[in-house]
Amino acid sequence: MNFTAAYTDLYQLTMAQVYFATKPVGHAVFDYYFRNNPFKGGYAIFAGLEDVLNVLETLKFSSSDISYLEQHGFEKDFLEYLKDFQFKGTIYSSQEGDVVFPNRPILQVEANIIEAQIIETFLLNMLNFQTLIATKASRIRHSAKNEILLDMGLRRAHATGGYYASRAAAIGGFDSTSNVKAAEDYNISSSGTMAHSFIQSYEDELQAFRDFAQYRPKNCVLLVDTYNTLKSGLPNAITVAKEMESQGEKLLGVRLDSGDLAYLSKKTRKMLDDADLGYVKIVASNQLDEFVIKSLKEQGAPIDIFGVGTNLVTGKPDAALDGVYKLSEYNGEPRIKLSENIIKVSLPHKKQVYRMLDQNGMFYGADAIALFKEDKITEMTHAYDTSKSLTLNDFNQEPLLQKVMEKGKKTQPQRSVAEIAAYSKSRLEKLPEEYKRFQNPHIYKIGLSKELKQERDTLVAKHKF
Amino acid sequence: MNFTAAYTDLYQLTMAQVYFATKPVGHAVFDYYFRNNPFKGGYAIFAGLEDVLNVLETLKFSSSDISYLEQHGFEKDFLEYLKDFQFKGTIYSSQEGDVVFPNRPILQVEANIIEAQIIETFLLNMLNFQTLIATKASRIRHSAKNEILLDMGLRRAHATGGYYASRAAAIGGFDSTSNVKAAEDYNISSSGTMAHSFIQSYEDELQAFRDFAQYRPKNCVLLVDTYNTLKSGLPNAITVAKEMESQGEKLLGVRLDSGDLAYLSKKTRKMLDDADLGYVKIVASNQLDEFVIKSLKEQGAPIDIFGVGTNLVTGKPDAALDGVYKLSEYNGEPRIKLSENIIKVSLPHKKQVYRMLDQNGMFYGADAIALFKEDKITEMTHAYDTSKSLTLNDFNQEPLLQKVMEKGKKTQPQRSVAEIAAYSKSRLEKLPEEYKRFQNPHIYKIGLSKELKQERDTLVAKHKF
Repeated sequence: MNFTAAYTDLYQLTMAQVYFATKPVGHAVFDYYFRNNPFKGGYAIFAGLEDVLNVLETLKFSSSDISYLEQHGFEKDFLEYLKDFQFKGTIYSSQEGDVVFPNRPILQVEANIIEAQIIETFLLNMLNFQTLIATKASRIRHSAKNEILLDMGLRRAHATGGYYASRAAAIGGFDSTSNVKAAEDYNISSSGTMAHSFIQSYEDELQAFRDFAQYRPKNCVLLVDTYNTLKSGLPNAITVAKEMESQGEKLLGVRLDSGDLAYLSKKTRKMLDDADLGYVKIVASNQLDEFVIKSLKEQGAPIDIFGVGTNLVTGKPDAALDGVYKLSEYNGEPRIKLSENIIKVSLPHKKQVYRMLDQNGMFYGADAIALFKEDKITEMTHAYDTSKSLTLNDFNQEPLLQKVMEKGKKTQPQRSVAEIAAYSKSRLEKLPEEYKRFQNPHIYKIGLSKELKQERDTLVAKHKF
Repeated sequence: MNFTAAYTDLYQLTMAQVYFATKPVGHAVFDYYFRNNPFKGGYAIFAGLEDVLNVLETLKFSSSDISYLEQHGFEKDFLEYLKDFQFKGTIYSSQEGDVVFPNRPILQVEANIIEAQIIETFLLNMLNFQTLIATKASRIRHSAKNEILLDMGLRRAHATGGYYASRAAAIGGFDSTSNVKAAEDYNISSSGTMAHSFIQSYEDELQAFRDFAQYRPKNCVLLVDTYNTLKSGLPNAITVAKEMESQGEKLLGVRLDSGDLAYLSKKTRKMLDDADLGYVKIVASNQLDEFVIKSLKEQGAPIDIFGVGTNLVTGKPDAALDGVYKLSEYNGEPRIKLSENIIKVSLPHKKQVYRMLDQNGMFYGADAIALFKEDKITEMTHAYDTSKSLTLNDFNQEPLLQKVMEKGKKTQPQRSVAEIAAYSKSRLEKLPEEYKRFQNPHIYKIGLSKELKQERDTLVAKHKF
């Protein structure tokens, strides 16, 4: 499947048809934000932006899209318009890889409302998913500390979504991926070991290991659990490691893919060390996630490389980030969406978000949302609980939304996945530890400037029943 | 992203390099199967086959794939081989849309082992995901009975995986999708309503409804919860419905997207009926799944159309099907993969699977796995519990694995998604109700023929430590 502008929900086009018919088409501002941190965590890692911008620069309806829409009740003059469709809007956004929080704009689209609506579905689809996976990866990185992390989830990923999962995993802190296509296109480090089938294809395991070591001596990792880890796989791997030494080569590692990984990794380490193979690494896989890895580390399991699949690439258990796209301004006028649940009331106007930094440049733990036109803000108030407010004079305030696209063209140079990952790591280092713990993390404060809150309250009152 | 043969795990290529170096390359048989029904249910709906076969027919390495591999340590002669790579194997498979069960081959690949390994990742990636989603859709269909089901999950799907989710949802029983691209390419019915932003873009809701009804009178569904469902949205929708009547048009429906859907749908029905608008349908959405819909039906909520998003397209809460691909034969010799967990021991040899049908053509509740060369089988035994066996003489036996690809070419005509969905429905109708319930469904029996069991036991004994 190639991206065309038909990668959208039908109602975007239905609404667009009405906007087109009731011209002039107005100018809209939409906010992208999510409502809850994934995984009951204390933060999220924003990912997917570069992919979104690259697609938007060239997004068009194909001729078969146009014929399809013609057969499905759309008007001729509107279809003529769609033939020349191009996104020509402006986008302000947090930087990809930044640490972000719920209920504050992460990205803001300004465009004529037809363009802004047609891109909505794609934008949500890509940002919601990559942010989910980058956040999961970041949590797994937190548990794994400095050990190597390998993404090997493609076979359990949501079809071609796995391609973007590998990219997002790298942004969130994974070292490499088994996914060749993603590694090639995004310049991510690729790696892999061997499958059980390789060993099964031989009459005996030792010969399978020998052939593998002979023809792939570099980065050679032998899978030792096909028949019996401690009685067969590991002794055979040790034999081959010694043979490799006599050829001037070194076995990189052995891989455990089943059983009790804490127990087996300790036994394995001992057997390797007893054979003077202290340099041979232990790779472990099998339904790992941030909690299992944390537990393995706590048990002192001497695992050097963790291979993570399903739980990473599907973002289990959440499986989705609840990001939304809400109209906040139309033809210069503020707009609001009410809800019986006050937390779901949207924020009107084009806005800026400021992050509070302490004297050491660390994140204090508060982002303030203000009207875009406001200058330095001195106080922020909780969106719903007016008894909570924070004076902001003592902080350095970092404006988070930067112009990344103007008139449909990117305004910043392309950043590689490696650069985004490095930026993400540097940002996460500024976030205090208590926001990173898995159980009841500290809640990062989001507040509104006095002016924004007043505007919101006025609009709520206006629409109240 | 386009499919090229680099849509695979690196280790497939690493192993392939060794197979290539240690010629002759052997002939392999691999089984695709999963170990557990998704969603703790009693069955799964097999989906994704047609997409897999279509891709396999034309799968190649691109020139940039080859250069990438050249830079990553692969040998020149092997790369020459990859330049001409084509899948030329044979595939036997259950029909797409069939009702399938754990721990029996669903699909069998016969090919030289290099080809069989290179396609493994893609095959698992596509079949695992589409089977997961088709099964989820089928469960939602079970709850919704004869009401209309609309897939509207693209914005929360796993990036481009959403394209395949819409296809699989249609196979599992959904009537239409909001996903224009998928609808266009797979000839699925497309539908959609309107977004809150459309109403917000107007100064007042009534004018928004009027414009929408004027310019999109066919299939017009008005979203009534932007400001207040019962006090504003619904009265305005009723006004517009009456105006439409005077123009000779009919409002199709109103959509509820928040609040207590059971309460609001009853109130809505009453208000519509009191206004002589008995024909106006009620569409409901907001975090629906099979359990919520079941509960709404039990409460008598008069909802005509259910829009389902996140829970459908992400296959929550499972998010993945645990399908695997295991070597069962190599160069004519049986192969096995042992495990400390006996349930994870694979089955050797090329096999056939027979479904037991009763006198009425209904599924009796048993599939028997036999050696491919076996004729009619008279008894099946539980794979691990030898006290359990079943005499098969009284059943009509339906062989489930049919040849779908030979020498890399499809052997059956292309089936449309609509045909596959109709087939799936007809198969599910043959499955007794007790396998379809959500709580502790009846367990469908899977057994081995005497010959297969003997072969398996002999190999286990041979490799035992």
